[in-house]
Amino acid sequence: MAEDEKPVPAGMTAEDISKEFKEHSVAEFFKKNMQMLGLTGKIKALTTIVHEYMSNSLDACEEAHILPDIEVQINEIGNEQYEVIVKDNGPGLTEETVGKAFGKLLAGTKFHRMIQMRGQQGIGSSGCTMLSQMTTGKPTQVITGTSKGPPISVEVTIDPKNNAPKVDNLVILKKEFKGTAVKAKFKGVKFVNSESSPLEYLRRTAIANPHAKITFIDPAGTKTVFDRTSKQIPARPTEIQPHPRGVSVDDVMTLSKTTKSKKIASFLREEFDRVGDKAIEEITKHVSFDLNKDPHQLQWDEAEEIVAQFKKIEFLAPRTDGLRPIGEERVQKSLKSIVEPEFLEVATRKPQVYAGGFPFQIEVALAYGGNAGRMSTDKDEEGQSVRKIEIMRFANNVPLLFDTGGCAITKAVQSVDWKRYGMRDIENAPLTIFVNLISVHVPYTSAGKQALSDEEAIMEELRLSLMEVGRKMFRYIGFRKREEEKQKKRKLFYKYATEVAIGLAELTGKKKEEIEAKLHDIVLRHLKLEEAQEAKQQQKGSELSEEEVEKEYQKRVQKEEKEKAKKKKKLTVQEE
Amino acid sequence: MAEDEKPVPAGMTAEDISKEFKEHSVAEFFKKNMQMLGLTGKIKALTTIVHEYMSNSLDACEEAHILPDIEVQINEIGNEQYEVIVKDNGPGLTEETVGKAFGKLLAGTKFHRMIQMRGQQGIGSSGCTMLSQMTTGKPTQVITGTSKGPPISVEVTIDPKNNAPKVDNLVILKKEFKGTAVKAKFKGVKFVNSESSPLEYLRRTAIANPHAKITFIDPAGTKTVFDRTSKQIPARPTEIQPHPRGVSVDDVMTLSKTTKSKKIASFLREEFDRVGDKAIEEITKHVSFDLNKDPHQLQWDEAEEIVAQFKKIEFLAPRTDGLRPIGEERVQKSLKSIVEPEFLEVATRKPQVYAGGFPFQIEVALAYGGNAGRMSTDKDEEGQSVRKIEIMRFANNVPLLFDTGGCAITKAVQSVDWKRYGMRDIENAPLTIFVNLISVHVPYTSAGKQALSDEEAIMEELRLSLMEVGRKMFRYIGFRKREEEKQKKRKLFYKYATEVAIGLAELTGKKKEEIEAKLHDIVLRHLKLEEAQEAKQQQKGSELSEEEVEKEYQKRVQKEEKEKAKKKKKLTVQEE
Repeated sequence: MAEDEKPVPAGMTAEDISKEFKEHSVAEFFKKNMQMLGLTGKIKALTTIVHEYMSNSLDACEEAHILPDIEVQINEIGNEQYEVIVKDNGPGLTEETVGKAFGKLLAGTKFHRMIQMRGQQGIGSSGCTMLSQMTTGKPTQVITGTSKGPPISVEVTIDPKNNAPKVDNLVILKKEFKGTAVKAKFKGVKFVNSESSPLEYLRRTAIANPHAKITFIDPAGTKTVFDRTSKQIPARPTEIQPHPRGVSVDDVMTLSKTTKSKKIASFLREEFDRVGDKAIEEITKHVSFDLNKDPHQLQWDEAEEIVAQFKKIEFLAPRTDGLRPIGEERVQKSLKSIVEPEFLEVATRKPQVYAGGFPFQIEVALAYGGNAGRMSTDKDEEGQSVRKIEIMRFANNVPLLFDTGGCAITKAVQSVDWKRYGMRDIENAPLTIFVNLISVHVPYTSAGKQALSDEEAIMEELRLSLMEVGRKMFRYIGFRKREEEKQKKRKLFYKYATEVAIGLAELTGKKKEEIEAKLHDIVLRHLKLEEAQEAKQQQKGSELSEEEVEKEYQKRVQKEEKEKAKKKKKLTVQEE
Repeated sequence: MAEDEKPVPAGMTAEDISKEFKEHSVAEFFKKNMQMLGLTGKIKALTTIVHEYMSNSLDACEEAHILPDIEVQINEIGNEQYEVIVKDNGPGLTEETVGKAFGKLLAGTKFHRMIQMRGQQGIGSSGCTMLSQMTTGKPTQVITGTSKGPPISVEVTIDPKNNAPKVDNLVILKKEFKGTAVKAKFKGVKFVNSESSPLEYLRRTAIANPHAKITFIDPAGTKTVFDRTSKQIPARPTEIQPHPRGVSVDDVMTLSKTTKSKKIASFLREEFDRVGDKAIEEITKHVSFDLNKDPHQLQWDEAEEIVAQFKKIEFLAPRTDGLRPIGEERVQKSLKSIVEPEFLEVATRKPQVYAGGFPFQIEVALAYGGNAGRMSTDKDEEGQSVRKIEIMRFANNVPLLFDTGGCAITKAVQSVDWKRYGMRDIENAPLTIFVNLISVHVPYTSAGKQALSDEEAIMEELRLSLMEVGRKMFRYIGFRKREEEKQKKRKLFYKYATEVAIGLAELTGKKKEEIEAKLHDIVLRHLKLEEAQEAKQQQKGSELSEEEVEKEYQKRVQKEEKEKAKKKKKLTVQEE
């Protein structure tokens, strides 16, 4: 329409509105909402692209039990135009799957499996293909070679209306190659070496994946190699089943429709973790129907009875063999070599379950002093740059660089009463907090996978894990920090005492130095009184002996565990 | 599986992985990721449900040009089990659309239209239907009456595997009813009267929709009526076209494929805002192809040329008649009556465009003192509860209560240098910041629609709008605040002076009162010196006269506008 005004239409009827009803594909949805995939913002988009390709490469190597050797290259090809190449030595893709992997949203190998993987939605890489074609009109080139037959090269685009891949220009290559290489062009993105750049992303990826060799060539041609610090291929995570403690009636109903079992008893045994003969016996005793019934005939009310029993029976904790933590020793080694802190505390917590029956596990570390924390532009009194808190967030060993404020990890850090651990001002401490949540299903707040949702069980466990390392650390640091603060305060008062002494010397005719010394005494007496009072208030914290602290902590943990247990008992079927 | 260990499978080949490839429906995706829809967390979920139903009701009334009269009722029907009923007086739904509206994700009237509406995805209500059936196994009941024929009642469920609605138990009702009433049951949710409760949600909805009458009956039976403060039906937002300043090559390509125009010239005139004869003339002169060509034959390179011209031509600003701000007067009236502040500044900014050609507009208000800010548990020296900053976020007049940290509005508030406006400690000020972003497409960070993505143009405009009201406000408040702070500091020093005087009286034998008076003089001199230095450092802010401040502000705005213009010129086609 031209510059003229458009008429304002009159009110619509239900029939008018009905005519406007349309359906949309998931590709159309995300195409209009690329911000939900983390693919807007010049700098953020480029990091997200590297993140998506890297995650797929690391997952593929893990599935194939191969030590990953991954090369990332970013070339500047014009004003805010870059080409991204990611090449791995993984198992490769078959000709049939390459289109789906890079050209169809919600298609993949991970969404339906309960297994700890980096990717889980089948959206990321196809989102990149969409961004590439949206900004440059060009297809994404994929070269892939498997252990069978020669490698191929194809060009992939997406038809958003139908969320369907288009695969063109298939070429059978003569050279030897096993693995997958993806090459795509993007416009309106920007490479900047910052805290949220691809380089920092890869550095953190290296920290959390010590068995991977990662090579990065930036647009200036600078090559950075993060060599593996461990040559051991980690055991593959295994697929697990939902743990009865966390499943809902709907979960039981959904699984009952697709099970191959012929009886409810065997269905429960086969499809859920830790359900053995004893549990079946217990359930049989308490439900109103026959467990020999066909599970495909299971009714909602009956599933409700089963879930009620699931809540009552004391099952073994979820199996840990499905989850693959990085491991305390490796985290320690990684952080020591990269952060070089004065103090380091690492902990791996026991696996827990959150709603849906998904097991998860927290790895946490506190690094203090040395190069811990991030450099800030603030200066201290002596003009030195001040280090501030840095939170390194990971999920299934993948670094999370964006949406910091919306993430459960950040919220958990903020919710801990660090003063109790001798940290008065956590924001301004030279502290790196490392947190890795591993799970067979990570509850991200958005399809862009940059922040964890604050699910109750996860928040609780995050807090407990932070408190655990916090408690250990404050034995060392609390005392030192408090001493420093005392000194600072004294210095300040002495400064004013000198000023006052000059005035008083004039006033009384006595010597300035004499007055000053007396004043210092007064100030010191005053400050000591204050400190003593403070110490009294802090009774439960820093002024206790180590044993007392240990006792106090154990008491608290036990109380928390008890409350947790109580809560769990109270939970109704749909506790989410 | 029973308690025994499962074998760890060996490495998979490309063929093994290929067999694991599956596709999933968007309903399955969100069912497994309800947290992305804001439908996890007991308290949050209940508020989100009310939010989704309310948004649809308000939108429907707006489309039909009806003064909304909406009743929300929440009944407790068991432990953590509630029934939610939302009834409106809107145009109703036809029998054909009711299933799609409540039982199919990504189906609706809003996604494909560039129009300012509360809903925009066609996901929300169907997500609620899914949550209801997941937690209770029950369908969602919808009663709806249009201007044609008798009202009907149906029960809707979703088949997640196929993202398809199932509509059962159709009953033709004998009573008179026009509008839509939805009734659904949920388990594992909880009604709590807190800052993020349905009540607070409805209170804020009333603030931003002064023409709506909203009645709320809570589980205790307490009835709250938010009566309309305006009886004028707001003019309906109108559908608009993308503004050439923000469209990408891909946007042009996509539109060219579905246009009914026979020539590129008429295609550009018809499908884009503000493209008139002069613009066509200009484009004709500079592109390498004939604008009489069929737009369906448009090539990527040619579309690139068009977009390059779009960037160069000075178009009229996007039309404002499509957007419907609440209006300064109404915001003022709303906030005055609800917040009763001492100071209030309201501004409605001019519409701007962000990437994609989407126009948007910011309404902003600062309310200071009185009941502004939120009550905190902190106490001041006199034991009074301290009020802290409260940020009321809205998008298209819909309150955003969750994901505060991840929202562009919060980030913009944090990024403003409030010290320049005389606010030393914004976190602890009795301040309510009201921000409403209206747009034909709101860039939410997630399908749960609780936080705005920090798109560059939006962040810039948010900052400018906050600075505009901040500047106006600090004339009044800055002086008062600084005086208060001075007094506080003096008090503190006097306190110590008294202590010192006691000591000195002992030391010198002189009268305590005499020494104290002298000390006060010294301290005062010292503090005045400090204040003078501070004022010098603040040169650009509070110590300037009003005229100077005005000048300084204008200079800054101009500089920012210039930089903005410069940036825009530099932007390449894909600036997002």
